[in-house]
Amino acid sequence: MTFSLLTPAVVALICVLIGIIFRNSRKTPKSELSTTSKKAVPGPWREDIKDGTDLHAEEEDDDHEWNELAHIPFSTERYSEEDMVKRSKDFYELLKKRRSVRFISDEPVPREVIDNVIKTAGTSPSGAHTEPWTFVVVNDKEVKHKIREIIEEEEEMNYMKRMGDRWVNDLKRMRTNWIKEYLDSAPYLILIFKQVYGILPDGKKKTHYYNEISVSIACGILLAALENVGLVTVTTTPLNCGPRLRVLLERPPNEKLLLLLPVGYPSKDATVPNFSRKPLDDIMVVI
Amino acid sequence: MTFSLLTPAVVALICVLIGIIFRNSRKTPKSELSTTSKKAVPGPWREDIKDGTDLHAEEEDDDHEWNELAHIPFSTERYSEEDMVKRSKDFYELLKKRRSVRFISDEPVPREVIDNVIKTAGTSPSGAHTEPWTFVVVNDKEVKHKIREIIEEEEEMNYMKRMGDRWVNDLKRMRTNWIKEYLDSAPYLILIFKQVYGILPDGKKKTHYYNEISVSIACGILLAALENVGLVTVTTTPLNCGPRLRVLLERPPNEKLLLLLPVGYPSKDATVPNFSRKPLDDIMVVI
Repeated sequence: MTFSLLTPAVVALICVLIGIIFRNSRKTPKSELSTTSKKAVPGPWREDIKDGTDLHAEEEDDDHEWNELAHIPFSTERYSEEDMVKRSKDFYELLKKRRSVRFISDEPVPREVIDNVIKTAGTSPSGAHTEPWTFVVVNDKEVKHKIREIIEEEEEMNYMKRMGDRWVNDLKRMRTNWIKEYLDSAPYLILIFKQVYGILPDGKKKTHYYNEISVSIACGILLAALENVGLVTVTTTPLNCGPRLRVLLERPPNEKLLLLLPVGYPSKDATVPNFSRKPLDDIMVVI
Repeated sequence: MTFSLLTPAVVALICVLIGIIFRNSRKTPKSELSTTSKKAVPGPWREDIKDGTDLHAEEEDDDHEWNELAHIPFSTERYSEEDMVKRSKDFYELLKKRRSVRFISDEPVPREVIDNVIKTAGTSPSGAHTEPWTFVVVNDKEVKHKIREIIEEEEEMNYMKRMGDRWVNDLKRMRTNWIKEYLDSAPYLILIFKQVYGILPDGKKKTHYYNEISVSIACGILLAALENVGLVTVTTTPLNCGPRLRVLLERPPNEKLLLLLPVGYPSKDATVPNFSRKPLDDIMVVI
């Protein structure tokens, strides 16, 4: 039994600790204690918030009720090992063909396909199951053009003065500049907003833990879904355009633009940079 | 030795006591508290830096040479509209079954499948094609247990003092606490590190634009690849454990832990919270 293991030394240690607790707790009135513990945000914690790395949230699946959720049995399809290997290989073969494509044809794409890929992205996990994403799908020609105007205007300024020389040079060799024809030509622009907080029924703000990571994960699933139907896109994060695009698209202040994906078929003369990906040994370490 | 007698129960008790002491000892005068909270609320500019929204990078495909890359023609498989609709629906049906599962069987999983899902994640786009990810796959029982010890130790402290009451309550209804049995039972733990900068051949640092978004996108693709082979996981971000896990796994200082995924088959008695997802109309806006 555990108690037989409580050697005198351990018992003494526990007694000392209990003593310290009692001494401390007598110092402060209880009301102050509870106030403090609610408000206390220690130094390291803030540091963690800043870079986001060391914050914690499990990408939980719950609902928005306060009550504890019922838990239900879970099972999933079980494939043979042979099937698993084959399925994993096939999926890799499919996705390794994906490239970021900036030459997008203006041919129309069935709207049902767009609905389905966004529904698929919506199956993504999210911090405390907040589902902090809004996918704004722009098909309207005029709105697409307004988006292009805003982005090109800001991008030109970015290139001309905001971006450091090194960054401009890094992008130069990829023939990237501020002319974004695909913003007009792509049949759909998907603008992905992260909801940095939610609004509860009583009007109070609801924290969206890890909203940026969650929405980025959803975007990864969206990219896989697009590749699966033969559509192309390029993952972009328009610099400094967030606020203007948010206003143009009439999104509320709790939403911030994370990514913009122009979606369509590749144009016939589409090209991509001739690059290679890191081999498995460079990205995986097995212990 | 005395230490061999420190059973987990006794250690836990001591930790609880120490936790209470620390919490009590953080009682601060109110004035100091408000100063702290003032410092913690940044101006709009820092807010932007923090969340990265208004920084820019296209998730470009280039290589690591300074020279401009050759561009090559691009084409992709073209499906009929009917096929596209069917493929998009099938992929949705597959992924909507995905759930975050914390009950993971210790049955072994073919290593080749793990290799393939990580290769698939490696096809993800990244800012300026930096591919800023390292996937550390832990199969070794002892290392898994060390990881569990580090995480449970830190998590317990998180629950006891670091996390705000609201957060603890948000997680409580999901029966989440600091006991993480899956860290021992899952045949593989995949720890995903973001490389916050790279090292050039001349030893200088190379900026990794948007490394966190890029690695999160790769993780979304990894989740899809796992679901596709019938394996389960839960997307976790162990709070405050990054530095200790980085040292344990001997990763260099430019790598920071972003996510930890325990991977395996669900155990027979696995359960999940009975929640629903937002309908399409709640996550998509069409213009």
